[in-house]
Amino acid sequence: MSTSAAGAPVVIVAESLDDSWRSWLAERCSVVNVKVDDDGAPLDSAEALVVRTYTHVDAALLDRMPALKVVGRAGVGIDNIDIGACRARGVEVVHTPAANTRAVVELVFAAVFDALRPRLFLDRALGLDEWKSVRAELVGPRELSECTLGILGIGRIGRQIARAAAGFDCTVIACDLEQIPQEHRHGAEMVGHDELFRRSDVLTIHVDGRAGNRGLIGTPELALLPEGALLVNASRGSVVDAGALAEWLGRDPSAQAILDVHDPEPFGQDLPLLALPNAHLMPHIGGATAHAHRNMSAVVEDVWRVLSGEPPRWPAPE
Amino acid sequence: MSTSAAGAPVVIVAESLDDSWRSWLAERCSVVNVKVDDDGAPLDSAEALVVRTYTHVDAALLDRMPALKVVGRAGVGIDNIDIGACRARGVEVVHTPAANTRAVVELVFAAVFDALRPRLFLDRALGLDEWKSVRAELVGPRELSECTLGILGIGRIGRQIARAAAGFDCTVIACDLEQIPQEHRHGAEMVGHDELFRRSDVLTIHVDGRAGNRGLIGTPELALLPEGALLVNASRGSVVDAGALAEWLGRDPSAQAILDVHDPEPFGQDLPLLALPNAHLMPHIGGATAHAHRNMSAVVEDVWRVLSGEPPRWPAPE
Repeated sequence: MSTSAAGAPVVIVAESLDDSWRSWLAERCSVVNVKVDDDGAPLDSAEALVVRTYTHVDAALLDRMPALKVVGRAGVGIDNIDIGACRARGVEVVHTPAANTRAVVELVFAAVFDALRPRLFLDRALGLDEWKSVRAELVGPRELSECTLGILGIGRIGRQIARAAAGFDCTVIACDLEQIPQEHRHGAEMVGHDELFRRSDVLTIHVDGRAGNRGLIGTPELALLPEGALLVNASRGSVVDAGALAEWLGRDPSAQAILDVHDPEPFGQDLPLLALPNAHLMPHIGGATAHAHRNMSAVVEDVWRVLSGEPPRWPAPE
Repeated sequence: MSTSAAGAPVVIVAESLDDSWRSWLAERCSVVNVKVDDDGAPLDSAEALVVRTYTHVDAALLDRMPALKVVGRAGVGIDNIDIGACRARGVEVVHTPAANTRAVVELVFAAVFDALRPRLFLDRALGLDEWKSVRAELVGPRELSECTLGILGIGRIGRQIARAAAGFDCTVIACDLEQIPQEHRHGAEMVGHDELFRRSDVLTIHVDGRAGNRGLIGTPELALLPEGALLVNASRGSVVDAGALAEWLGRDPSAQAILDVHDPEPFGQDLPLLALPNAHLMPHIGGATAHAHRNMSAVVEDVWRVLSGEPPRWPAPE
């Protein structure tokens, strides 16, 4: 299973990785492609562990990896990694915070147009009457240009949403816990929490998956939204209370939700949103572009920096 | 059929019109809702004719309308109206050139993301293995941010396409017969005709339907496009040679075309593009938003101006 010279540090790659970055790593390390709970996983000797979404790095796993120096998360969110437990053991954690920014921004706008703009691709010719009636059914009730777009969390992704939205002439408002410098707002007007919900025809969520953000959008917040609002969540599933959302969507058939993320993932058949025609559920594909995948796999550069005793470029925040 | 006082000018409204603008007109004129080729159409007495897409205003019709003073086109394109024949008879033609700009821009970006970004809305829960395999199939091969977006014709709509594209970080190039002032380019680099085609990963067409633009995109132009290019046409169907396009799409399965407009409309079952999996045909819905429809119906303001002896705001170009 080892692909490099003896004596090179052992690196467990527990999930998929871009081929060219895997090769790059294999030129420097002894790479073992194995899940951490597989029998053959060299937990005792591995100096680095590279994961994506599905490997949970907790104290119990760390206790079984005494030689570990660095965990590389090929991606942005680090909710599957117990950062505190890592740092307490002197294990660095690195990730790729900017890897999927563009991919997520593009998915959000794709989702917004899916909701606002009915479309149909024809697979046969239509007679004039049918052509006219099909066209009459495909009239979008609202243009994005008429909407107020609200951004909850105007960080790395939120501010790029603001920048793209400005090009469509919509009113852009945003709310964030932090003071956001003018040049990072891209024209978005900063408003308070309640005002954000009250004014947003389209609300898109761009906060992270920290524990304190669990249930950030619940019954009180949804009640503030205008009738017929569109909620887009491509951040973390835990941020939205799915039960409250189902109630809101049930009460207002003109409202819509497009959710790329869920809690848990994959969601079960008991998800209340599954029964609702105005809830649209994607299988967490916000970062699903070849470009973003390559960017995420570049985390191995930082893994190698740590193994070489250099400071990493993208250490995970505490 | 008349809805106003006797003596008020007779106006034929030959196609659909927004209700509030129809009422506005009916307060001032004797409005008759009838197709021009229906028996009851008061062609001899009508002083104004309001049309959209399907009424052809030609010399033969004008000869039967001796009292006509103005033709109002609720919309942008005026290829269904013989402007020369109208003006030769002293009949003014007015339209609404800016009515659907935002609607078309939004449809073009919806189409671009339809092509670049595979999506799936789930109607049931998936097990972890199926969830992972579905996600693996939905990886977008290219982000818009990586693409060069080419705009053929950077007029009223094209420049708004450039402006929105800038917010997605793609390289934007454009070609136009006219000199476009810097402030209307929104960062687009002006290039020559061949260079536009050679460099465009995504090419979107925003020229008008004048006779000289017929077949503007044919075999030589398509041959210049990079492998796997995406062609979007939401301008006029006659601009693209459908036979040449079908050949190009047949030769390069990674290429795609999204066509909102056709020649003729509706197209017949003999359209060669119908058989191709990489040709995506919409039923001319670029301007299909409630907002654009209201804007287009506002043409009756200019109709009333002409009937009142005032200069219209939006006379059709020669």
